[in-house]
Amino acid sequence: MSTRTGILFVISGPSGVGKGTVRNAVMPLVDDLQMSISATTRAPRPGEVDGLDYFFVTPARFQQMIAGGELLEWAQVYGNLYGTPYEYVTSMLSQGRDVLLEIDIQGALQVKEKMPQGVFIFISPPSVEELSRRLCGRGNDSEESIQIRLAACQQEMDHIKYYDYVVVNDRVEDAVDKVRSIIMAERCKRKNLNLG
Amino acid sequence: MSTRTGILFVISGPSGVGKGTVRNAVMPLVDDLQMSISATTRAPRPGEVDGLDYFFVTPARFQQMIAGGELLEWAQVYGNLYGTPYEYVTSMLSQGRDVLLEIDIQGALQVKEKMPQGVFIFISPPSVEELSRRLCGRGNDSEESIQIRLAACQQEMDHIKYYDYVVVNDRVEDAVDKVRSIIMAERCKRKNLNLG
Repeated sequence: MSTRTGILFVISGPSGVGKGTVRNAVMPLVDDLQMSISATTRAPRPGEVDGLDYFFVTPARFQQMIAGGELLEWAQVYGNLYGTPYEYVTSMLSQGRDVLLEIDIQGALQVKEKMPQGVFIFISPPSVEELSRRLCGRGNDSEESIQIRLAACQQEMDHIKYYDYVVVNDRVEDAVDKVRSIIMAERCKRKNLNLG
Repeated sequence: MSTRTGILFVISGPSGVGKGTVRNAVMPLVDDLQMSISATTRAPRPGEVDGLDYFFVTPARFQQMIAGGELLEWAQVYGNLYGTPYEYVTSMLSQGRDVLLEIDIQGALQVKEKMPQGVFIFISPPSVEELSRRLCGRGNDSEESIQIRLAACQQEMDHIKYYDYVVVNDRVEDAVDKVRSIIMAERCKRKNLNLG
């Protein structure tokens, strides 16, 4: 049995960059990796499952989690609240399990402050034009919210400097392979091994 | 075209650990990776090709290379001289090409002093017993040279602290996958990218 502390991997990036898709594709490729699940007050999108994609909670319950210090990070995004249950992550890490957390940039920066030992991976779009295409193609946003998102995107790109790795998501298979490689490599880092 | 400086990857480890096998298996799996080739005065083993596995040179020519400062590192190992041509490595790196160098531990430590920005990967045997089995199974060493190698092995294991990564070579496919992952991951490091 390994007695090392688990590694926290944080996948983040601009809205619409496809980080959820990359996360979902990486999970079955890596052994002994625990996915962190966010709590949110937003409504489930078609196909999303409570307790799998998110913990869907009421605003009242979310406020209770904030007040009780139950969240590692939380943010209001486009009118909805998102947060990561603290206890879930830290208990996994202390058991020596690696945790994969997929969150937006605001959330990642909060996690970076509290857990700087984490491995921070920025998923980048190939270009701003491509990001626009993805957002416009999503089909569930009004024209106004797309413009707001695009303006926020440039600001978010400036946050790359806080990340350890940058993965350009031009071909999703390549992005998935790169994220998997980062996880494999971090596990081989001498400082992350308990050498007998 | 990328204008970044190339990354030097150094694969090293105890004699007989299988680092050459790992190196040879990794090469075709990674794009745009240039293998460094060592010069040596030892005789070719069956199947080894001059200019591919090693540059096989005379002791006189090797002394000339030392005197002329043509070697990044060199060492005498079991009566033979091994060395890495300096110019070959630095010209590749300055062209933005990544270089993979497979050398013994003494050589790796010399490279670490001269090029500390390199990525140093230690290939470790699963156990000292396994190392012994590999060496004894090689079939071209006398009993005495095996004992000398085993004694040197423990000393070499103490050098792990100078390496960035440790890859245990228990199953060669796994070791190859891990080394490939390390190369992929290092290429994604923010500090190794020229961000537009």
